[in-house]
Amino acid sequence: MFGKQSIQFENPPFLVNSGSIVGSKEGQGPMGKLFDRVGQDDMFGAQTWEEAESTLQKEAVQIVLEKENMKIEEIELLFAGDLLGQSIASSFGIASFQTPHIGLYGACSTCGLSIAVGSLTIAGGFADKVICVTSSHFASAEKEFRFPLAYGNQRPLSATWTVTGSAAFLLASRPDRTARAVVSGVTFGKIMDYGLKDSMNMGACMAPAAVDTIRQHLQDFGRKPEDYDKIITGDLGVVGQKLLFELLAKDGIDIKKQHMDCGMEIFDSEKQNTNAGGSGCGCAAVTLSAYILKKLEEGVWKRVLFLPTGALLSKTSFNEGQSIPGIAHAVVLEHWKG
Amino acid sequence: MFGKQSIQFENPPFLVNSGSIVGSKEGQGPMGKLFDRVGQDDMFGAQTWEEAESTLQKEAVQIVLEKENMKIEEIELLFAGDLLGQSIASSFGIASFQTPHIGLYGACSTCGLSIAVGSLTIAGGFADKVICVTSSHFASAEKEFRFPLAYGNQRPLSATWTVTGSAAFLLASRPDRTARAVVSGVTFGKIMDYGLKDSMNMGACMAPAAVDTIRQHLQDFGRKPEDYDKIITGDLGVVGQKLLFELLAKDGIDIKKQHMDCGMEIFDSEKQNTNAGGSGCGCAAVTLSAYILKKLEEGVWKRVLFLPTGALLSKTSFNEGQSIPGIAHAVVLEHWKG
Repeated sequence: MFGKQSIQFENPPFLVNSGSIVGSKEGQGPMGKLFDRVGQDDMFGAQTWEEAESTLQKEAVQIVLEKENMKIEEIELLFAGDLLGQSIASSFGIASFQTPHIGLYGACSTCGLSIAVGSLTIAGGFADKVICVTSSHFASAEKEFRFPLAYGNQRPLSATWTVTGSAAFLLASRPDRTARAVVSGVTFGKIMDYGLKDSMNMGACMAPAAVDTIRQHLQDFGRKPEDYDKIITGDLGVVGQKLLFELLAKDGIDIKKQHMDCGMEIFDSEKQNTNAGGSGCGCAAVTLSAYILKKLEEGVWKRVLFLPTGALLSKTSFNEGQSIPGIAHAVVLEHWKG
Repeated sequence: MFGKQSIQFENPPFLVNSGSIVGSKEGQGPMGKLFDRVGQDDMFGAQTWEEAESTLQKEAVQIVLEKENMKIEEIELLFAGDLLGQSIASSFGIASFQTPHIGLYGACSTCGLSIAVGSLTIAGGFADKVICVTSSHFASAEKEFRFPLAYGNQRPLSATWTVTGSAAFLLASRPDRTARAVVSGVTFGKIMDYGLKDSMNMGACMAPAAVDTIRQHLQDFGRKPEDYDKIITGDLGVVGQKLLFELLAKDGIDIKKQHMDCGMEIFDSEKQNTNAGGSGCGCAAVTLSAYILKKLEEGVWKRVLFLPTGALLSKTSFNEGQSIPGIAHAVVLEHWKG
C-alpha cells in the first residue's frame, strides 16, 4: 500500500470511455443534455422497477461498447454492483453478456469501488479491458429502503432523491485512440459509524466516511486540497456537505473551494423538489460519465479526487434499530495529455 | 487474462492461515472437532440473528489474528461479503476493525471470490497482507430468503441447510513462518441462468455455473480432472452434484473421482435432517479452513480446485417470478513445499 489506505499506480490504467443513461426527471435536470440516453418514462420497457434498473445497466454497457465499436467478447471482466438486496439489478442486468463477473457492494460508493478494483486488475497486469457498471433507480430504492411509493410519505428537507440512472466505464491498459482520463491512484475507505440512525438523512450518515477518506488520501499522497481542481463526493447533499466542511475543519482541512457534490448538481433542487439533492449509485456514476469526465477530457480540470459515498443501510438493520454506517472509496482521475 | 476467464500468478500469494467458527449443529457434524471455535447456542451473545452473524465474522478474523499473533493494524485490506441484503453481516461485523474494506457479493461463491480478488491485490504488488472473510447463519438466511422459522414450513428433499459459520483467511505476499497453501491461480465465473425458479432447490440452480467454471478452468489451464487431487464445490448438495456430473458428461468431462462438495461433508444428512446438504457462504468457508487446508498442509492433497457456488437469489426477484441464476468462482490451492 501507498501510505495507509492508498495505491499509486506505476502503470496507471486509462478510463477510455463511458456511457450513461438516466430517467426522465434526471433528463429534465441541469445536466439533462449531457447524458447519452434519457428514458421517456422510468420503466424502460420493463415490467418491474427492479427489471427497469437491470435494463439501465445493460444499456449503459451497450452504450460504451457502441461508442468504442467494441464487442462484449473483448471485455475480460465485468465489475458490477447496486443498492438492491443481493445486487439483483446487476445480476439480472449483466447476465446476458456472459462475461466473467466480479460483484461488488459498497452502497452508493460502488462506482468508486468498482473503478478502484477494476484499476487494480489492469495495473497489476491481469487484464487489458474491463467494464465497471453501477446503477440505482428511484422507485426500486424507495421500495427497498423506505416506504411504498403509493403511500405518499412526506420527505423531510434532509431526504435525498435516488437517481434513476446507470453508467458504465471502460478501463484499459492502453488508450484506444483516445482516453477520457487516467486513473492515477486510489484510496480505499474504512467503515465509519457515528451512530446516526435516520434513513431520511443519509448525507449526515455518510459525511464522516467522506471526511475520513479525504483526510487519509491527502496524508497518503502528501497532497493538499489545492492539488486538486475538484474534490467530488457522490451524494452527500446539502446537509451532508455542511457536516463535511465542519468535520474537516476540525482537522484544519478546508476544501470549500474545491468541493463539488454530484447530488447537489444533478437536480435543480428547488424546481424539482429533490430536497437535499440526488443520491444512489447512479448519481455519482452518471455525473462522472456525463460531466466530470467531460471537464477532464477538455483539460478544464487537470486532476480531480472522485469519492462516492455509501450508506451501509438495509431495511433489516434499520428496523432492528441499528445505526447507518458509511464508507467512501476515492479514485484520482487525471487529464490525459494524449 | 490467462485463457478466457483465468489468471495464473507469477508470484503466487500465500494463504498463510485461517480461522473458523461455527454454530452448535455444525459442531455436532462430522467435522465438528476440526473447527477452531464452536458456539454453545446460535446467538453468540447477540440480540438478533443478523448481529449473531456479524459476531461470527468478527470472531473469525480475531481467531486468525490470534493464531498469527498479529494486530489488525497489520492488515492492509479486508475483503468481506455475505448473503444478507446490503451485506449487513459484513458491514456490522468488520466495522470496528477500522481496516480499509472492499465489499464483495457473489452469494455463496463469495468465499472463492474474496480469495480470488484478495490474491490479485497481493500478486499485483499492491498489498502484503489482506484478510478475506465470509459468513452465513441458518436463521438470518431463512428469514432473508424463505419463511419465518416460527412458521415451521416443510423442507423438500432438495432443500439445503444454511450453515451457521464464518471463516477468515489471511493472504500474504510472503509466508510468515509457514503457510497453509499457495494460491496459484483463479478462474472467475460467469452468471449462468437455466431458468430454474425453485428456492428450495438451490443445488440445481447453481450446478450449471459450477459446470461452466470447471470446464473453462480446465480449458484455460490446459489441465484434466486428474491434475487435481480434489475438485471441490461449495454447496451443490446431493441434487446439485447429480446434475453437475450429468452436465459435465455432455462435454466429456468426468470428475466423479475428484469431486467433493462441502455441503455434503459438513453435516450427517440422515442423522441431522439436513436433506440435500449444507449451504451458505459459511459452508464452503469453514470447510476450507478446517478440512481442505488441513489436507493441503499435510501434503495429503497437492493441488485442489476450490469453487464455491452462489445462487443469485433475492426475495424480491423470487417474488416477482424471476429465475435464480448461479455463479461459481474458482481458486487453485496448492500444497506449500516450504
